[in-house]
Amino acid sequence: VGADRTATASLTDLGLALWRAAGAAGGRWEQTVAVEELRALEGSLGVLGAEAARGMAGAPAPPVAPPGPRPAGIDADALLAFLDRDHRALRDEVRHALGHAALTIPPGLSVDEYRARVLTAVRHLAGRGWGRLGYPEAYGGAADPAAAVAVFETLAFGDLSVVVKFGVQFGLFGGSVHQLGTERHHAAYLPSIGSLELPGCYAMTETSHGSNVRDLETTATYDADTDELEVHTPSEGAGKDYIGNAALHGRMATVFARLRVGDRDHGVHAVLVPLRDAGGGSLPGVRIEDRGLKLGLNGVDNGRIWFDRVRVPRANLLDRFGTIDERGAYRSPISSSGRRFFTMLRTLVAGRVSIAAASVSAAKVGLTIAVRYADDRRQFGPKNAPETPILDYPVVQRALMPRLATTYGLHFAARALQRDYAASGSTDDPELEVTAAGLKAYASDHCVETLQACREACGGQGYMAAMRFAALKADTDVFTTFEGANDVLYQLVAKGLLSRYRDQMGDLNLWRALQYLGERAETRLTGLNPVTTRRTDRDHLLDEGFHAATFAYREARLLRSAAARIRARLQDGVDSFVAVTEVQDHLVTLARAHIEHVVLLRMHDAVAAAPTPALSEHLRTLAALFALSRVEADRAWFLESGYVEAGKSRAIRVLVGALSTEAREVARPLVDAFGVPAELLPAVVGGAGA
Amino acid sequence: VGADRTATASLTDLGLALWRAAGAAGGRWEQTVAVEELRALEGSLGVLGAEAARGMAGAPAPPVAPPGPRPAGIDADALLAFLDRDHRALRDEVRHALGHAALTIPPGLSVDEYRARVLTAVRHLAGRGWGRLGYPEAYGGAADPAAAVAVFETLAFGDLSVVVKFGVQFGLFGGSVHQLGTERHHAAYLPSIGSLELPGCYAMTETSHGSNVRDLETTATYDADTDELEVHTPSEGAGKDYIGNAALHGRMATVFARLRVGDRDHGVHAVLVPLRDAGGGSLPGVRIEDRGLKLGLNGVDNGRIWFDRVRVPRANLLDRFGTIDERGAYRSPISSSGRRFFTMLRTLVAGRVSIAAASVSAAKVGLTIAVRYADDRRQFGPKNAPETPILDYPVVQRALMPRLATTYGLHFAARALQRDYAASGSTDDPELEVTAAGLKAYASDHCVETLQACREACGGQGYMAAMRFAALKADTDVFTTFEGANDVLYQLVAKGLLSRYRDQMGDLNLWRALQYLGERAETRLTGLNPVTTRRTDRDHLLDEGFHAATFAYREARLLRSAAARIRARLQDGVDSFVAVTEVQDHLVTLARAHIEHVVLLRMHDAVAAAPTPALSEHLRTLAALFALSRVEADRAWFLESGYVEAGKSRAIRVLVGALSTEAREVARPLVDAFGVPAELLPAVVGGAGA
Repeated sequence: VGADRTATASLTDLGLALWRAAGAAGGRWEQTVAVEELRALEGSLGVLGAEAARGMAGAPAPPVAPPGPRPAGIDADALLAFLDRDHRALRDEVRHALGHAALTIPPGLSVDEYRARVLTAVRHLAGRGWGRLGYPEAYGGAADPAAAVAVFETLAFGDLSVVVKFGVQFGLFGGSVHQLGTERHHAAYLPSIGSLELPGCYAMTETSHGSNVRDLETTATYDADTDELEVHTPSEGAGKDYIGNAALHGRMATVFARLRVGDRDHGVHAVLVPLRDAGGGSLPGVRIEDRGLKLGLNGVDNGRIWFDRVRVPRANLLDRFGTIDERGAYRSPISSSGRRFFTMLRTLVAGRVSIAAASVSAAKVGLTIAVRYADDRRQFGPKNAPETPILDYPVVQRALMPRLATTYGLHFAARALQRDYAASGSTDDPELEVTAAGLKAYASDHCVETLQACREACGGQGYMAAMRFAALKADTDVFTTFEGANDVLYQLVAKGLLSRYRDQMGDLNLWRALQYLGERAETRLTGLNPVTTRRTDRDHLLDEGFHAATFAYREARLLRSAAARIRARLQDGVDSFVAVTEVQDHLVTLARAHIEHVVLLRMHDAVAAAPTPALSEHLRTLAALFALSRVEADRAWFLESGYVEAGKSRAIRVLVGALSTEAREVARPLVDAFGVPAELLPAVVGGAGA
Repeated sequence: VGADRTATASLTDLGLALWRAAGAAGGRWEQTVAVEELRALEGSLGVLGAEAARGMAGAPAPPVAPPGPRPAGIDADALLAFLDRDHRALRDEVRHALGHAALTIPPGLSVDEYRARVLTAVRHLAGRGWGRLGYPEAYGGAADPAAAVAVFETLAFGDLSVVVKFGVQFGLFGGSVHQLGTERHHAAYLPSIGSLELPGCYAMTETSHGSNVRDLETTATYDADTDELEVHTPSEGAGKDYIGNAALHGRMATVFARLRVGDRDHGVHAVLVPLRDAGGGSLPGVRIEDRGLKLGLNGVDNGRIWFDRVRVPRANLLDRFGTIDERGAYRSPISSSGRRFFTMLRTLVAGRVSIAAASVSAAKVGLTIAVRYADDRRQFGPKNAPETPILDYPVVQRALMPRLATTYGLHFAARALQRDYAASGSTDDPELEVTAAGLKAYASDHCVETLQACREACGGQGYMAAMRFAALKADTDVFTTFEGANDVLYQLVAKGLLSRYRDQMGDLNLWRALQYLGERAETRLTGLNPVTTRRTDRDHLLDEGFHAATFAYREARLLRSAAARIRARLQDGVDSFVAVTEVQDHLVTLARAHIEHVVLLRMHDAVAAAPTPALSEHLRTLAALFALSRVEADRAWFLESGYVEAGKSRAIRVLVGALSTEAREVARPLVDAFGVPAELLPAVVGGAGA
């Protein structure tokens, strides 16, 4: 993407000129869209110029060339230092801690023993002060939300029940007090939450209302006579469900309930409700049911909670975004109840940032085990020769190497998200929310698929509990569901992209002009210029600019067509819920395309930031493998849209195989650089674990 | 596929004429290839004729039309009767038995308790005589191998540790004695194996040799002085591994070892070796290690076994395919050691037939639970209206309905395989072996993916152990590995197809002529006839003939190109192992295409055999959904190969969505017809279970 695109200069320049003319410098959002639209334009125009002349002259597209000289081997330590450049020392501390007896929990415990061990482990972590890192300094914290995520992410190399219980206590329960409460709630509760003296729950989900939080039924009714809130579960299905810490250890809960003051329903608010006395018995009006055995995470005591007209003081309302004053009147700094609802839900962002990070960690553990095993394990071979390491087989390389590259991409994207999250403070940042939702969904899907591929690559050995896949698979499985079911989150991402698009289409006439120009140019060029879609030489296929343009093109086109489809249905008079539901598949595709685009750009940032040319080169190969393997996976769409022709599609397929073989050569240092502690690796792959 | 293909008549006729002229009626294999080649030809020629005229005249391809009148609702009982028409009464008996206390094992037991319960369950099944159904009548059996598989398949609705332990004892251990032994072995052991008085093992896999059985290291050396065999494990890695029944209950094992007589190594043979005394202690020279906790199937006691010069009488050699006579001389009815090896491995066919069946059963259970849940569960909805059942959402329909259709397809294919398996007796049938290997791999992959999709469709509820996905997922996970790792089996399938192809190419000149004609015709027509690739009307897209031709075309083309790639590398002088390894991906793709073709044809058989027009119509819809969803999944390949154009590919995508919505209307009776007993379904979806 650069100098030789002479033929397109006028269009791009025109777009930029229009943009400048509009003078609407605006926020980050608009700039991002501008850049993406331009990239999409460049995507369709990008190979004109010098290449066009060659192609138009009828020269056949050259085949994929053999790889150039191999870059030097990888210094795993240097790469690890680069990967962990944020909060390096803290991450190392946590890594060390993972070898501590309190944190090494053997598989095969009974549910009772396991829960007890996990409580001990979380207490140990609280003792180190790691639970309160995100809280204000006045209450023992470090006011460093990124540090809190760094701890969570690193702990996720180990037992995931510990990680989830840690997250429930300090992130969800403590985080809700911190984010939704005010000074007096902080003073009253954060110290004892951070020390685990006050174990608690985050009681949002109801049995009948999983993803649809807005329609939950629990009520918190203000009684002016006693100046209390009465928390009540109106039906069996309105019981709070799957609540971590509820079955055994939680003594208080942040309960999400519809706040009623007088005749008015002010929508969902959060109220602190005590659950148990010091002896562990349920308080009057509180009914708790143990959710019992689960598919995984059996060290976490999930339960159901029902409230029968439980009364708490008015002060228990976490009232940062909506309060009841001394005279019993409701007041909120946010006038729109819809916006207030989404503001309160923003506490989920931290959870999604964390689950994305933990998903990446679990994928790293799986890949470390599988790559080491497949590199050592030999099966079959040529006659009269030693058997071949199974990592030399194309099907194994195909199964593991693109996923290794994707894991690197998600690492960089998750870390960038963590930085943005820490930087955002508590300000409104729709882009951050979209990225957090999308990365959580994409990373947890990736984690589940990767662990399955890793387990299968290890054959019968992979089925042994000592290899850790049993726990890794079972424990991460619910990552696709909690903190928002992935399908629902993808739609949230798509809706975010659509409203951004619509706002611009509505607000800025320049965009209409630019879009029109872009569409015309795209159509004309796809029709006119066979070179665009045919080029198959290695230099082109490996070009970062080609990858970025391709991902931008796909996202922009999916966005435009989704908007057009929905608009058409709305114009037919269809209900907006129905119109959006009809294009669900399209929206999920759009959301995934957007996230892959984000991941690619963060990989390119990493290539640019790498400390040595050799590391940069290796990361460039991984970025190319990620980009091309995603294009390969979606090549039907690119073929259907005319963006690539059959020959180019096949060339990409061949190149993904070749890059997988190249990555295989350095696969071992690539997984070593993840820094999974040896204590957490099975002995059979060179670890110190079981 | 029929009368209106006037333009192609001359070519097809020519092929048939050549075929008849060669007079080489030959076996089933050749006929199959002939038919497939012709179908492939028809695939590329198939839309000429009447359609061609219309298309050539420039009429635009019509869009997918709306569905016709909906067929009547489904009578689930009638459909169940049709699905279970083989061994109906026996299957009903087993279904009833699954509610028996001995067979209903709760989740969450310790490994020790679980193993004990599973042993009790298998003893209960032995008591009913179900373990020996495949054995000769003289030893209490029914000489009915299909009945044995029917029991196994139906039991797989329940606890899968019970099923696997049942299979190890009666199928693998008993089956090896039955298939590899002779009359005296049958008389001596089959009665006590069938009654479970003699629990045993099938000790084939070694730690260092999982899939590569041919290179296993354990030896059985004949000592002429004592007329004994000395069974020995020469190295730690040559220990028998993952052996079911070994850790606790097995008292004898069929041990696969290299047979040495004098100076000669006669390759892998099977020897019966006692492991434990009546008190359960290991016999001298036998070392057993408990494999401990596994990802799933923890009711089965897997272990490792090492032998230190253990001596057994010569009579313990299972000597149907290779014996040592009284004078100490080795004799075999099969002169080629390679062919002898594969003949002995044929005992694995029964295992693969059984695992394919069990995979289908587990997928049925998962779909039954998920469809019922998604049909009842409501989340979100239009304003001022009840929430929408999640099965009404396109993403949920997309996740479940094509998999439901595929499960129907695999049901019919697995049942046809069972019939062929029973009919084959012990005769050599390479086609059966290829289909068994391929269906085992395809069905177990399908099972894993389907259970994941089902679990995710049930959200947080799906994560509860009571919903059964925890056990279903964990227990079936190893189906992709045991009885042959799926990647290895796919290559076995592809190699089977390739050798059949090569034999014909070598033997029959007519094939060269036919192939040449076919290739020329294909090229010419793809170049000339845009109608072939563009037709998008519903009648065409739903036409069984179009589906069959499409699947045949894909398989034949993948086969030809794989053969050409390997031949080219061999001509370059590359080692055959390397040449085949290089095209591994291609071979896996070919094998899956072949299996999908087989499944489609069996679905078409079922459409034809259905007892009522209404059922036939519903099965036709499922067959179309299976066919089109597979074409959709592989549409990049069809686009790359020019078989469909972008518009047709998009039309297929739209139609898969529409068919998924149609299937959703009858999804409940479709899963009810699987006949999963109510006792095995969770209460939350209307079952009588936990």
